[in-house]
Amino acid sequence: MQVTVAEPRRERVPLNGVDTPTLFATINAVKGMPELAKFQFRATNQWVKGTHSRTVIDSFSGAGASHTHATPFRYDADHPAVLVGTDQAPTPVEFLLHALCACLTAGIANVAAARGVTLTSVESTIEGDINLLGILGLSDQVRNGYERIRVNFKIAGDAPAEKLRQIVEQSRSRSAVFDVLTNGVPVEIAVHT
Amino acid sequence: MQVTVAEPRRERVPLNGVDTPTLFATINAVKGMPELAKFQFRATNQWVKGTHSRTVIDSFSGAGASHTHATPFRYDADHPAVLVGTDQAPTPVEFLLHALCACLTAGIANVAAARGVTLTSVESTIEGDINLLGILGLSDQVRNGYERIRVNFKIAGDAPAEKLRQIVEQSRSRSAVFDVLTNGVPVEIAVHT
Repeated sequence: MQVTVAEPRRERVPLNGVDTPTLFATINAVKGMPELAKFQFRATNQWVKGTHSRTVIDSFSGAGASHTHATPFRYDADHPAVLVGTDQAPTPVEFLLHALCACLTAGIANVAAARGVTLTSVESTIEGDINLLGILGLSDQVRNGYERIRVNFKIAGDAPAEKLRQIVEQSRSRSAVFDVLTNGVPVEIAVHT
Repeated sequence: MQVTVAEPRRERVPLNGVDTPTLFATINAVKGMPELAKFQFRATNQWVKGTHSRTVIDSFSGAGASHTHATPFRYDADHPAVLVGTDQAPTPVEFLLHALCACLTAGIANVAAARGVTLTSVESTIEGDINLLGILGLSDQVRNGYERIRVNFKIAGDAPAEKLRQIVEQSRSRSAVFDVLTNGVPVEIAVHT
Protein backbone atom coordinates (compact mmCIF):
# COMPACT_ATOMS: atom_id res chain seq x y z
CA MET A 1 0.00 0.00 0.00
CA GLN A 2 1.36 3.38 -0.97
CA VAL A 3 1.47 5.92 1.81
CA THR A 4 3.15 9.24 1.19
CA VAL A 5 3.35 12.23 3.45
CA ALA A 6 1.38 15.30 2.45
CA GLU A 7 1.04 18.57 4.27
CA PRO A 8 -2.54 19.74 4.81
CA ARG A 9 -3.60 22.13 2.06
CA ARG A 10 -4.30 25.65 3.16
CA GLU A 11 -7.01 26.24 0.61
CA ARG A 12 -10.23 24.34 0.92
CA VAL A 13 -10.68 22.76 -2.44
CA PRO A 14 -13.01 19.93 -3.46
CA LEU A 15 -11.33 16.65 -2.61
CA ASN A 16 -12.39 12.98 -2.54
CA GLY A 17 -15.60 14.02 -4.31
CA VAL A 18 -16.43 16.19 -1.29
CA ASP A 19 -17.35 19.77 -2.15
CA THR A 20 -15.23 21.04 0.73
CA PRO A 21 -15.90 24.78 0.17
CA THR A 22 -19.67 24.14 0.29
CA LEU A 23 -19.22 21.87 3.32
CA PHE A 24 -17.48 24.64 5.25
CA ALA A 25 -19.94 27.26 3.99
CA THR A 26 -22.75 25.03 5.28
CA ILE A 27 -21.09 24.67 8.68
CA ASN A 28 -20.62 28.44 8.88
CA ALA A 29 -24.23 29.09 7.89
CA VAL A 30 -25.44 26.73 10.63
CA LYS A 31 -23.08 28.36 13.12
CA GLY A 32 -24.82 31.68 12.43
CA MET A 33 -28.33 30.20 12.60
CA PRO A 34 -28.41 27.05 14.78
CA GLU A 35 -32.10 26.42 13.98
CA LEU A 36 -30.96 25.21 10.55
CA ALA A 37 -29.36 22.18 12.24
CA LYS A 38 -32.68 20.62 13.23
CA PHE A 39 -33.49 17.72 10.92
CA GLN A 40 -36.16 15.06 10.89
CA PHE A 41 -35.76 11.88 8.85
CA ARG A 42 -38.70 9.61 8.08
CA ALA A 43 -39.75 6.35 6.55
CA THR A 44 -42.95 4.41 5.99
CA ASN A 45 -43.15 0.64 6.09
CA GLN A 46 -45.78 -1.74 4.81
CA TRP A 47 -46.02 -5.40 5.73
CA VAL A 48 -46.01 -7.65 2.65
CA LYS A 49 -46.27 -11.22 3.96
CA GLY A 50 -44.62 -13.29 6.68
CA THR A 51 -41.42 -11.55 7.76
CA HIS A 52 -41.24 -9.59 4.49
CA SER A 53 -41.94 -5.86 4.55
CA ARG A 54 -41.13 -2.86 2.39
CA THR A 55 -39.95 0.59 3.43
CA VAL A 56 -40.14 3.82 1.44
CA ILE A 57 -37.76 6.65 2.28
CA ASP A 58 -38.74 9.86 0.55
CA SER A 59 -39.18 13.11 2.47
CA PHE A 60 -37.26 14.73 5.28
CA SER A 61 -37.02 18.16 6.81
CA GLY A 62 -34.07 20.25 7.83
CA ALA A 63 -32.24 23.52 7.24
CA GLY A 64 -35.58 25.22 7.80
CA ALA A 65 -37.34 23.52 4.88
CA SER A 66 -39.03 20.35 3.63
CA HIS A 67 -37.10 18.18 1.22
CA THR A 68 -37.63 15.09 -0.89
CA HIS A 69 -34.90 12.78 -2.08
CA ALA A 70 -33.99 12.79 -5.77
CA THR A 71 -36.21 9.71 -6.02
CA PRO A 72 -38.23 7.75 -3.45
CA PHE A 73 -35.98 4.93 -2.21
CA ARG A 74 -37.55 1.52 -1.56
CA TYR A 75 -36.01 -1.24 0.55
CA ASP A 76 -37.37 -4.62 1.52
CA ALA A 77 -36.43 -6.65 4.56
CA ASP A 78 -37.08 -10.30 5.31
CA HIS A 79 -35.70 -13.28 7.20
CA PRO A 80 -33.69 -16.02 5.48
CA ALA A 81 -35.06 -19.54 5.18
CA VAL A 82 -33.10 -20.73 8.21
CA LEU A 83 -35.06 -18.14 10.20
CA VAL A 84 -38.35 -19.18 8.61
CA GLY A 85 -38.53 -16.33 6.11
CA THR A 86 -38.37 -16.16 2.32
CA ASP A 87 -35.05 -14.28 1.95
CA GLN A 88 -36.47 -11.55 -0.27
CA ALA A 89 -34.02 -9.14 1.33
CA PRO A 90 -31.55 -8.96 4.23
CA THR A 91 -32.72 -9.09 7.82
CA PRO A 92 -33.35 -5.81 9.64
CA VAL A 93 -30.23 -6.33 11.80
CA GLU A 94 -28.07 -6.50 8.67
CA PHE A 95 -29.29 -3.03 7.70
CA LEU A 96 -27.85 -1.79 11.00
CA LEU A 97 -24.44 -2.96 9.77
CA HIS A 98 -24.94 -1.17 6.45
CA ALA A 99 -25.91 2.02 8.28
CA LEU A 100 -22.87 1.94 10.54
CA CYS A 101 -20.16 1.31 7.96
CA ALA A 102 -21.75 3.76 5.50
CA CYS A 103 -21.93 6.50 8.16
CA LEU A 104 -18.33 6.03 9.24
CA THR A 105 -17.18 5.95 5.60
CA ALA A 106 -19.02 9.16 4.67
CA GLY A 107 -17.42 10.82 7.68
CA ILE A 108 -13.98 9.57 6.69
CA ALA A 109 -14.34 11.13 3.23
CA ASN A 110 -15.52 14.45 4.70
CA VAL A 111 -12.84 14.62 7.39
CA ALA A 112 -10.10 13.64 4.95
CA ALA A 113 -11.22 16.35 2.53
CA ALA A 114 -11.31 18.91 5.33
CA ARG A 115 -7.78 17.95 6.32
CA GLY A 116 -6.45 18.04 2.76
CA VAL A 117 -5.94 14.29 2.48
CA THR A 118 -6.68 12.58 -0.83
CA LEU A 119 -8.07 9.09 -0.27
CA THR A 120 -7.54 6.32 -2.78
CA SER A 121 -9.69 3.65 -1.10
CA VAL A 122 -11.78 3.01 1.96
CA GLU A 123 -13.08 -0.50 2.50
CA SER A 124 -14.67 -1.99 5.56
CA THR A 125 -15.94 -5.30 6.75
CA ILE A 126 -18.40 -5.38 9.61
CA GLU A 127 -19.80 -8.24 11.62
CA GLY A 128 -22.27 -8.52 14.44
CA ASP A 129 -22.67 -11.42 16.86
CA ILE A 130 -26.18 -12.24 17.99
CA ASN A 131 -27.49 -15.10 20.07
CA LEU A 132 -31.06 -15.86 19.07
CA LEU A 133 -31.93 -17.42 22.44
CA GLY A 134 -33.01 -13.85 23.26
CA ILE A 135 -35.49 -13.14 20.47
CA LEU A 136 -36.75 -16.73 20.51
CA GLY A 137 -37.70 -16.24 24.16
CA LEU A 138 -35.54 -19.19 25.26
CA SER A 139 -33.33 -17.32 27.73
CA ASP A 140 -33.79 -14.26 29.88
CA GLN A 141 -30.01 -14.05 30.27
CA VAL A 142 -29.47 -13.33 26.58
CA ARG A 143 -30.27 -9.93 25.07
CA ASN A 144 -32.39 -9.65 21.94
CA GLY A 145 -29.93 -7.68 19.86
CA TYR A 146 -26.28 -7.87 18.86
CA GLU A 147 -23.89 -8.67 21.69
CA ARG A 148 -21.07 -6.87 19.90
CA ILE A 149 -20.21 -5.38 16.53
CA ARG A 150 -16.74 -5.21 14.98
CA VAL A 151 -15.71 -2.96 12.09
CA ASN A 152 -12.44 -3.35 10.21
CA PHE A 153 -11.34 -0.51 7.98
CA LYS A 154 -8.72 -0.73 5.28
CA ILE A 155 -7.88 2.78 4.20
CA ALA A 156 -5.34 4.23 1.78
CA GLY A 157 -4.48 7.80 0.82
CA ASP A 158 -1.70 10.37 0.57
CA ALA A 159 -1.06 10.66 4.29
CA PRO A 160 0.92 8.67 6.86
CA ALA A 161 -0.78 5.75 8.58
CA GLU A 162 -1.14 7.71 11.82
CA LYS A 163 -2.97 10.53 10.08
CA LEU A 164 -5.29 8.10 8.32
CA ARG A 165 -6.08 6.50 11.69
CA GLN A 166 -6.83 9.93 13.13
CA ILE A 167 -9.27 10.58 10.29
CA VAL A 168 -11.14 7.36 11.10
CA GLU A 169 -11.15 8.30 14.79
CA GLN A 170 -12.54 11.77 14.05
CA SER A 171 -15.27 10.22 11.89
CA ARG A 172 -16.15 7.83 14.72
CA SER A 173 -16.29 10.63 17.25
CA ARG A 174 -18.85 12.51 15.10
CA SER A 175 -20.82 9.62 13.63
CA ALA A 176 -24.58 9.78 14.12
CA VAL A 177 -25.03 6.04 13.64
CA PHE A 178 -22.11 5.12 15.92
CA ASP A 179 -23.64 7.32 18.62
CA VAL A 180 -27.09 5.77 18.29
CA LEU A 181 -25.79 2.20 18.20
CA THR A 182 -23.40 2.56 21.13
CA ASN A 183 -25.41 4.89 23.35
CA GLY A 184 -28.99 4.05 22.44
CA VAL A 185 -31.86 6.43 21.76
CA PRO A 186 -35.37 6.75 23.23
CA VAL A 187 -37.95 5.08 20.96
CA GLU A 188 -41.69 5.65 21.36
CA ILE A 189 -44.14 3.24 19.75
CA ALA A 190 -47.83 4.07 19.29
CA VAL A 191 -50.44 1.65 17.95
CA HIS A 192 -53.62 2.57 16.09
CA THR A 193 -56.11 -0.16 15.33
CA MET B 1 -61.48 -0.74 10.25
CA GLN B 2 -62.92 -4.16 10.78
CA VAL B 3 -62.09 -5.78 14.09
CA THR B 4 -63.72 -9.05 15.01
CA VAL B 5 -63.06 -11.28 17.95
CA ALA B 6 -61.37 -14.58 17.26
CA GLU B 7 -60.26 -17.25 19.69
CA PRO B 8 -56.65 -18.39 19.28
CA ARG B 9 -56.46 -21.50 17.14
CA ARG B 10 -55.27 -24.63 18.90
CA GLU B 11 -53.52 -26.02 15.86
CA ARG B 12 -50.45 -24.28 14.60
CA VAL B 13 -51.15 -23.69 10.95
CA PRO B 14 -49.39 -21.39 8.50
CA LEU B 15 -50.86 -17.91 8.89
CA ASN B 16 -49.99 -14.43 7.61
CA GLY B 17 -47.46 -16.04 5.28
CA VAL B 18 -45.64 -17.35 8.36
CA ASP B 19 -44.85 -21.07 8.29
CA THR B 20 -45.91 -21.40 11.92
CA PRO B 21 -45.27 -25.16 12.25
CA THR B 22 -41.69 -24.69 11.01
CA LEU B 23 -41.27 -21.65 13.26
CA PHE B 24 -42.19 -23.70 16.33
CA ALA B 25 -40.14 -26.67 15.15
CA THR B 26 -37.16 -24.31 14.83
CA ILE B 27 -37.69 -22.94 18.33
CA ASN B 28 -37.89 -26.47 19.70
CA ALA B 29 -34.75 -27.53 17.85
CA VAL B 30 -32.85 -24.56 19.30
CA LYS B 31 -34.23 -25.33 22.76
CA GLY B 32 -32.65 -28.79 22.49
CA MET B 33 -29.32 -27.47 21.14
CA PRO B 34 -28.71 -23.86 22.23
CA GLU B 35 -25.50 -23.61 20.18
CA LEU B 36 -27.73 -23.35 17.08
CA ALA B 37 -28.84 -19.91 18.29
CA LYS B 38 -25.45 -18.30 17.71
CA PHE B 39 -25.54 -16.20 14.55
CA GLN B 40 -23.15 -13.76 12.95
CA PHE B 41 -24.30 -11.27 10.34
CA ARG B 42 -21.87 -9.43 8.09
CA ALA B 43 -21.50 -6.76 5.47
CA THR B 44 -18.73 -5.22 3.42
CA ASN B 45 -18.68 -1.60 2.40
CA GLN B 46 -16.70 0.23 -0.25
CA TRP B 47 -16.33 3.97 -0.51
CA VAL B 48 -17.42 5.29 -3.93
CA LYS B 49 -16.93 9.08 -3.81
CA GLY B 50 -17.72 11.89 -1.39
CA THR B 51 -20.35 10.66 1.07
CA HIS B 52 -21.45 7.88 -1.30
CA SER B 53 -20.59 4.28 -0.44
CA ARG B 54 -21.90 0.84 -1.32
CA THR B 55 -22.54 -2.13 0.96
CA VAL B 56 -22.82 -5.78 -0.01
CA ILE B 57 -24.70 -8.17 2.28
CA ASP B 58 -24.18 -11.77 1.30
CA SER B 59 -23.00 -14.37 3.82
CA PHE B 60 -23.86 -15.05 7.42
CA SER B 61 -23.45 -17.92 9.84
CA GLY B 62 -25.84 -19.51 12.28
CA ALA B 63 -27.61 -22.72 13.23
CA GLY B 64 -24.19 -24.36 13.13
CA ALA B 65 -23.53 -23.62 9.47
CA SER B 66 -22.45 -21.00 6.94
CA HIS B 67 -25.13 -19.49 4.73
CA THR B 68 -25.42 -17.13 1.81
CA HIS B 69 -28.48 -15.13 0.93
CA ALA B 70 -30.50 -16.12 -2.13
CA THR B 71 -28.63 -13.33 -3.91
CA PRO B 72 -25.98 -10.83 -2.75
CA PHE B 73 -27.87 -7.69 -1.71
CA ARG B 74 -26.33 -4.30 -2.55
CA TYR B 75 -27.26 -0.99 -0.92
CA ASP B 76 -25.82 2.45 -1.42
CA ALA B 77 -25.84 5.29 1.09
CA ASP B 78 -25.17 8.98 0.54
CA HIS B 79 -26.01 12.42 1.87
CA PRO B 80 -28.59 14.66 0.18
CA ALA B 81 -27.55 17.90 -1.51
CA VAL B 82 -28.51 19.98 1.53
CA LEU B 83 -25.92 17.96 3.44
CA VAL B 84 -23.34 18.37 0.67
CA GLY B 85 -23.84 14.91 -0.86
CA THR B 86 -25.15 13.72 -4.20
CA ASP B 87 -28.32 11.96 -2.98
CA GLN B 88 -27.56 8.65 -4.69
CA ALA B 89 -29.29 6.89 -1.78
CA PRO B 90 -30.69 7.64 1.67
CA THR B 91 -28.46 8.71 4.53
CA PRO B 92 -27.15 6.05 6.90
CA VAL B 93 -29.46 7.28 9.68
CA GLU B 94 -32.50 6.68 7.48
CA PHE B 95 -31.48 3.03 7.18
CA LEU B 96 -31.76 2.81 10.97
CA LEU B 97 -35.44 3.76 10.60
CA HIS B 98 -35.93 1.09 7.92
CA ALA B 99 -34.28 -1.51 10.17
CA LEU B 100 -36.46 -0.66 13.15
CA CYS B 101 -39.87 -0.65 11.49
CA ALA B 102 -39.01 -3.76 9.44
CA CYS B 103 -37.88 -5.65 12.56
CA LEU B 104 -40.99 -4.75 14.53
CA THR B 105 -43.22 -5.62 11.58
CA ALA B 106 -41.62 -9.06 11.04
CA GLY B 107 -42.12 -9.73 14.73
CA ILE B 108 -45.75 -8.66 14.56
CA ALA B 109 -46.43 -11.13 11.74
CA ASN B 110 -44.69 -13.96 13.61
CA VAL B 111 -46.37 -13.26 16.95
CA ALA B 112 -49.79 -12.87 15.34
CA ALA B 113 -49.37 -16.20 13.53
CA ALA B 114 -48.28 -17.90 16.75
CA ARG B 115 -51.36 -16.51 18.47
CA GLY B 116 -53.74 -17.54 15.70
CA VAL B 117 -54.48 -13.98 14.56
CA THR B 118 -54.88 -13.29 10.85
CA LEU B 119 -53.56 -9.86 9.97
CA THR B 120 -54.97 -7.86 7.09
CA SER B 121 -52.53 -4.95 7.19
CA VAL B 122 -49.61 -3.57 9.14
CA GLU B 123 -48.37 -0.12 8.25
CA SER B 124 -45.98 2.09 10.09
CA THR B 125 -44.54 5.55 9.87
CA ILE B 126 -41.32 6.31 11.66
CA GLU B 127 -39.49 9.55 12.26
CA GLY B 128 -36.27 10.49 13.98
CA ASP B 129 -35.26 13.93 15.24
CA ILE B 130 -31.63 14.85 14.94
CA ASN B 131 -29.86 18.12 15.62
CA LEU B 132 -26.81 18.41 13.39
CA LEU B 133 -25.02 20.79 15.75
CA GLY B 134 -23.58 17.55 17.13
CA ILE B 135 -22.06 15.99 14.03
CA LEU B 136 -21.02 19.38 12.67
CA GLY B 137 -18.96 19.88 15.80
CA LEU B 138 -20.80 23.11 16.67
CA SER B 139 -22.03 22.12 20.13
CA ASP B 140 -20.79 19.76 22.79
CA GLN B 141 -24.24 19.85 24.39
CA VAL B 142 -25.88 18.13 21.41
CA ARG B 143 -25.43 14.43 20.74
CA ASN B 144 -24.37 13.20 17.29
CA GLY B 145 -27.28 10.84 16.73
CA TYR B 146 -31.06 10.91 16.90
CA GLU B 147 -32.48 12.57 20.00
CA ARG B 148 -35.63 10.47 19.76
CA ILE B 149 -37.44 8.13 17.37
CA ARG B 150 -41.22 7.71 17.10
CA VAL B 151 -42.99 4.80 15.43
CA ASN B 152 -46.70 4.80 14.64
CA PHE B 153 -48.30 1.49 13.76
CA LYS B 154 -51.64 1.08 12.06
CA ILE B 155 -52.62 -2.56 12.32
CA ALA B 156 -55.73 -4.51 11.33
CA GLY B 157 -56.67 -8.16 11.73
CA ASP B 158 -59.27 -10.58 13.08
CA ALA B 159 -58.68 -9.78 16.74
CA PRO B 160 -59.84 -7.09 19.15
CA ALA B 161 -57.84 -3.87 19.35
CA GLU B 162 -56.40 -4.87 22.73
CA LYS B 163 -55.08 -8.16 21.37
CA LEU B 164 -53.54 -6.40 18.36
CA ARG B 165 -51.82 -3.97 20.72
CA GLN B 166 -50.49 -6.90 22.76
CA ILE B 167 -49.04 -8.41 19.58
CA VAL B 168 -47.16 -5.18 18.85
CA GLU B 169 -45.95 -5.06 22.46
CA GLN B 170 -44.71 -8.65 22.30
CA SER B 171 -42.88 -7.89 19.06
CA ARG B 172 -41.26 -4.83 20.70
CA SER B 173 -40.20 -6.84 23.73
CA ARG B 174 -38.35 -9.36 21.51
CA SER B 175 -37.10 -7.08 18.74
CA ALA B 176 -33.37 -7.29 18.07
CA VAL B 177 -33.26 -3.84 16.44
CA PHE B 178 -35.36 -2.19 19.17
CA ASP B 179 -32.96 -3.62 21.75
CA VAL B 180 -29.85 -2.39 19.94
CA LEU B 181 -31.29 1.07 19.27
CA THR B 182 -32.62 1.65 22.78
CA ASN B 183 -29.90 -0.06 24.82
CA GLY B 184 -26.84 0.32 22.63
CA VAL B 185 -24.23 -2.27 21.76
CA PRO B 186 -20.41 -2.33 22.10
CA VAL B 187 -18.75 -1.46 18.77
CA GLU B 188 -15.05 -2.07 18.11
CA ILE B 189 -13.33 -0.33 15.22
CA ALA B 190 -9.94 -1.41 13.88
CA VAL B 191 -8.01 0.41 11.16
CA HIS B 192 -5.51 -1.14 8.74
CA THR B 193 -3.51 1.15 6.49
